[in-house]
Amino acid sequence: MTVLILTCEGDVTADLVVAELAALGTPLVRLDPADLPGRAALSAEYASGDFDGYLSVDGRMVAAAALRGVWVRRPGPPAALAAEPSDWLTAETGQALYGMLASTDARWMNPPGAAERARLKPWQLRAAHGSGFAVPPTVVTTFPRVAEQFAARHGRVVVKTLSGPPRGEPRIAVPTALVGADADFAAVAAAPTLLQRYVPKRADIRLTAVGRRLFAARKTAAEGQVDGRYGDTGHGWEPTAVPERIERSVRAYTAAAGLAYAAFDFAEDEEDVWWFLECNQGGQFGFVELDTGLPVARAIAEWLAGTA
Amino acid sequence: MTVLILTCEGDVTADLVVAELAALGTPLVRLDPADLPGRAALSAEYASGDFDGYLSVDGRMVAAAALRGVWVRRPGPPAALAAEPSDWLTAETGQALYGMLASTDARWMNPPGAAERARLKPWQLRAAHGSGFAVPPTVVTTFPRVAEQFAARHGRVVVKTLSGPPRGEPRIAVPTALVGADADFAAVAAAPTLLQRYVPKRADIRLTAVGRRLFAARKTAAEGQVDGRYGDTGHGWEPTAVPERIERSVRAYTAAAGLAYAAFDFAEDEEDVWWFLECNQGGQFGFVELDTGLPVARAIAEWLAGTA
Repeated sequence: MTVLILTCEGDVTADLVVAELAALGTPLVRLDPADLPGRAALSAEYASGDFDGYLSVDGRMVAAAALRGVWVRRPGPPAALAAEPSDWLTAETGQALYGMLASTDARWMNPPGAAERARLKPWQLRAAHGSGFAVPPTVVTTFPRVAEQFAARHGRVVVKTLSGPPRGEPRIAVPTALVGADADFAAVAAAPTLLQRYVPKRADIRLTAVGRRLFAARKTAAEGQVDGRYGDTGHGWEPTAVPERIERSVRAYTAAAGLAYAAFDFAEDEEDVWWFLECNQGGQFGFVELDTGLPVARAIAEWLAGTA
Repeated sequence: MTVLILTCEGDVTADLVVAELAALGTPLVRLDPADLPGRAALSAEYASGDFDGYLSVDGRMVAAAALRGVWVRRPGPPAALAAEPSDWLTAETGQALYGMLASTDARWMNPPGAAERARLKPWQLRAAHGSGFAVPPTVVTTFPRVAEQFAARHGRVVVKTLSGPPRGEPRIAVPTALVGADADFAAVAAAPTLLQRYVPKRADIRLTAVGRRLFAARKTAAEGQVDGRYGDTGHGWEPTAVPERIERSVRAYTAAAGLAYAAFDFAEDEEDVWWFLECNQGGQFGFVELDTGLPVARAIAEWLAGTA
């Protein structure tokens, strides 16, 4: 049984899982869809009620029937590195590759349709509520007056991007920012804005769910720090236990979302409540593993290989 | 209960359904995501385990809780008509709109995740096999030799695009084309190619599934005609009965695909077999309704309004 990793070159996080698969003795193929067709090739035949396919990467063949798990890490756009790239070639190649893979019996981390929905932050908030998490009151709006009223009601609110920082060069960081009730919200009319009640936090929590296995890490926050992803707090990530109540909610959430992998961010307040901030279906785990030694890469490898 | 139609301006097919919804007395809102923010605005608040949202289009408000059905017809890219459009604004606005809609209890025609997978032609072929349809042998490949051997084995094969014609201007038609076994398949290495055994056909069949209701239309083919979508055959579309076996397969397919709406194309051969060619989750139905009088638009309106 073979594992297929879809990711671009230079993805060092994928390297961690590649090493674990090698240690498990599980054959794997690493493919950047950008290299298809060219370094990679494929064929899929549908006849007499059956399906028969194979992938070839750098001359190495793997049968579609042998695929046990597909890991969608950081795949490039199909055919992006072709001799004559075009939007149409990307569309045709994406159809051929993902259509063939969707015809296999492989398990996906994560299934593309589930991943797409789980990326929607407003959907996350509703699902988090439904799963029993504590969720800070949040509004997504294009009405300046709604934003003003929300900020007035909660005193201190944070503003976040919905879709992450803009892609492209130069890369721009868009950290979560604290704003007061006296801010000018006129620009809200020009772009949907997410405002959330500020949670004064004692620590950031990153909980990584891999199948049924949960790995939680905690980093003490600096005084008054808003976004744990930026700036040095003088503290590192440390393993922490998962409260039973949180475990139940995580399982409810991943089941509702249909996710095999999910990275949850929580803010821990002074009363030990873990506030749900977001759940990234493709979130990084390398920094957690390096700081804490939590065996996330191993768990991913085992899940993909079907031994977990 | 309100129906939301996501489509661009000038979509005359949507007009047919709008008229039927009006006749049913069902309130509806028509929105092009390209008009958000601007002509349209939204707000969604997530607090105390509850979700409360509303959309405003041309000053008319509709509560998210009142949405009964969402019809994804031909939506423009979010924020495409904004004063200062950008990829990032499109991503942020898409998050806000689709995230809010995914938080509602509305029924979708079709659910976005299901639609995405159902667009993959290779997946369609596997699902069609699994649903009991007759499917012509098909190969999708980047190996010229595989294409050559396939053509040699079947004598006459057709070549089709996987993803449809290229988008953009000028618009290019890419009709299904008949090729012989002696064709030069070298170019297959540069782009994944779909080859299918040619089915000599007596007629084209278009079967439109709307929830549980099926509408089949038949058009006699011209002698030797390959692609029923292009060229005048001298025949029009006429209503036709759905064989019981096909009905069972259609229901199996739409259930497996998770689709509320699906437009199936079949080729009817000399022995009355309906060969599955493809299933378009967003296929047009206006031409069928105009030619045959089959009440497809009415059925869509009833499904969206929840009265079907």
